[in-house]
Amino acid sequence: MDEDQVARSAQLALLFEVSAYPKPGNVDRTHDFMDTSYEHFLASSVAVYPVLREAAMRKGRGVGELIRKGVEESVKWQHGGNTHFGALLLLIPLAMAAGASDSCATPVLKYRASEIMRNTDVEDAIELYRAFPVAKVRVRRDVAELDVMNEASLEEIRNKQLSLFDILTISAPYDLISRELVGGFEKTFRYAALIADFIRDKPLNEAITHAYLNLLAEEEDTFVKMKFGAEKSRYVKERAKGIADRGYRREELEEFDHELIIAGINPGSSADLIVAALFIAILQGLKV
Amino acid sequence: MDEDQVARSAQLALLFEVSAYPKPGNVDRTHDFMDTSYEHFLASSVAVYPVLREAAMRKGRGVGELIRKGVEESVKWQHGGNTHFGALLLLIPLAMAAGASDSCATPVLKYRASEIMRNTDVEDAIELYRAFPVAKVRVRRDVAELDVMNEASLEEIRNKQLSLFDILTISAPYDLISRELVGGFEKTFRYAALIADFIRDKPLNEAITHAYLNLLAEEEDTFVKMKFGAEKSRYVKERAKGIADRGYRREELEEFDHELIIAGINPGSSADLIVAALFIAILQGLKV
Repeated sequence: MDEDQVARSAQLALLFEVSAYPKPGNVDRTHDFMDTSYEHFLASSVAVYPVLREAAMRKGRGVGELIRKGVEESVKWQHGGNTHFGALLLLIPLAMAAGASDSCATPVLKYRASEIMRNTDVEDAIELYRAFPVAKVRVRRDVAELDVMNEASLEEIRNKQLSLFDILTISAPYDLISRELVGGFEKTFRYAALIADFIRDKPLNEAITHAYLNLLAEEEDTFVKMKFGAEKSRYVKERAKGIADRGYRREELEEFDHELIIAGINPGSSADLIVAALFIAILQGLKV
Repeated sequence: MDEDQVARSAQLALLFEVSAYPKPGNVDRTHDFMDTSYEHFLASSVAVYPVLREAAMRKGRGVGELIRKGVEESVKWQHGGNTHFGALLLLIPLAMAAGASDSCATPVLKYRASEIMRNTDVEDAIELYRAFPVAKVRVRRDVAELDVMNEASLEEIRNKQLSLFDILTISAPYDLISRELVGGFEKTFRYAALIADFIRDKPLNEAITHAYLNLLAEEEDTFVKMKFGAEKSRYVKERAKGIADRGYRREELEEFDHELIIAGINPGSSADLIVAALFIAILQGLKV
């Protein structure tokens, strides 16, 4: 697929996702965080275009480098800090897969993206570690031997010749995004299909917020778990499940949103996955 | 300037402008029109990126062709109709000027953009006329000899060898955008400076909405005049002036917004000019 087609689809996914509201706990067009506003997300979505475009032209090599470049561009264009680290982790290999494919059918893209991830090498792993401090991403400190803020861990990666795929396999048991990246993007494509299904009888905004709530109800958000602990992430999951089961009433979504915002709990990993799902849905024909 | 730098600055201007609220009468992040929603503007802003990028690489030739291409991409990516015709009219020559310049200082860009407009030819004029039906733009029908929906007018342009500059000179007395394009982008750069000034002590959203209100108070909106007549456009101007003079109170802006939305009055030309002003302000350093 044409690189500008791919880059635009990925960028539009970023914009649609951040604009959807109410999206319990996360930045949307009606809610800013203290240090990170809706406008920061707009600027970051604009900033990463050339990197998404490059990904679509790369035919599969340099995943780690492009993630780092994407994060660098993002923070160059806005002062709101980390906006799109998780989203870029998913978008870069998917954009590479789309750029290297003639078809955007699910089996084709899924196979190609998985292959791209399996083919990552030690340089990709090192580039990812270089991107962490740029994005100031919160990471689990108890995996001491691979502490990302530690220069020694880069040595370790080099010595053990760990690929990006290897590194993400270590974090997959506790990290939603890593699990997607090493597990064949299963949820990404499932949620792309769900959004495409929702959009048949809902406006785009509802299709996105309902898909997001579905995901919260299905899976504990990694970002919430790391920042607030397992009890909180379980609570968010159960609360989301209750609302989804009762039929997504707008007032309930708003209440839940309000509750999470007051508590400062932002399910960022779930939002990242919805971005990736929207990207696939747009490639496959979603249009406003 | 680098083409991706230019294209991103122009795209971010489109996104910042449409997101700013309340913006009396126009689509913003909290207001859709019946047939054109905020999401249509997002999709259109994404759609035009490759054309903005091409403009920055072109070094001054093909203004008309790129405007037509921009409009075509815009309507390919969304079903909301005309979103960015007026904005593209201003952004294309300005993006060309930025792409062809080493500096983004006002005198440099202003001179270069004016020169690009003066150098337009009959092909540029014909391309603009081709873009009108694509965008389904409302145009003044009383300039019979150059009715844009009329094939004969294309003949007329060819016979008289009218350039795009010539055509716009005809519409300049009654059209704000044409006046900018043939008059050296005077208001565009003045409002860029105003926004840069406002942003020193206001959040971005206010800087944009206040600049927009300033413009409404200064100049009758062409779009309103053509669609609703001179009485209405004068009223909008006076009403805006009252609010600006009293210090831009939020409640007054919201009331005015509500009033115009109920009446279906959208000052589209003013919004287009604010996009162009934001583009210049971003090139010159505005950052969230």
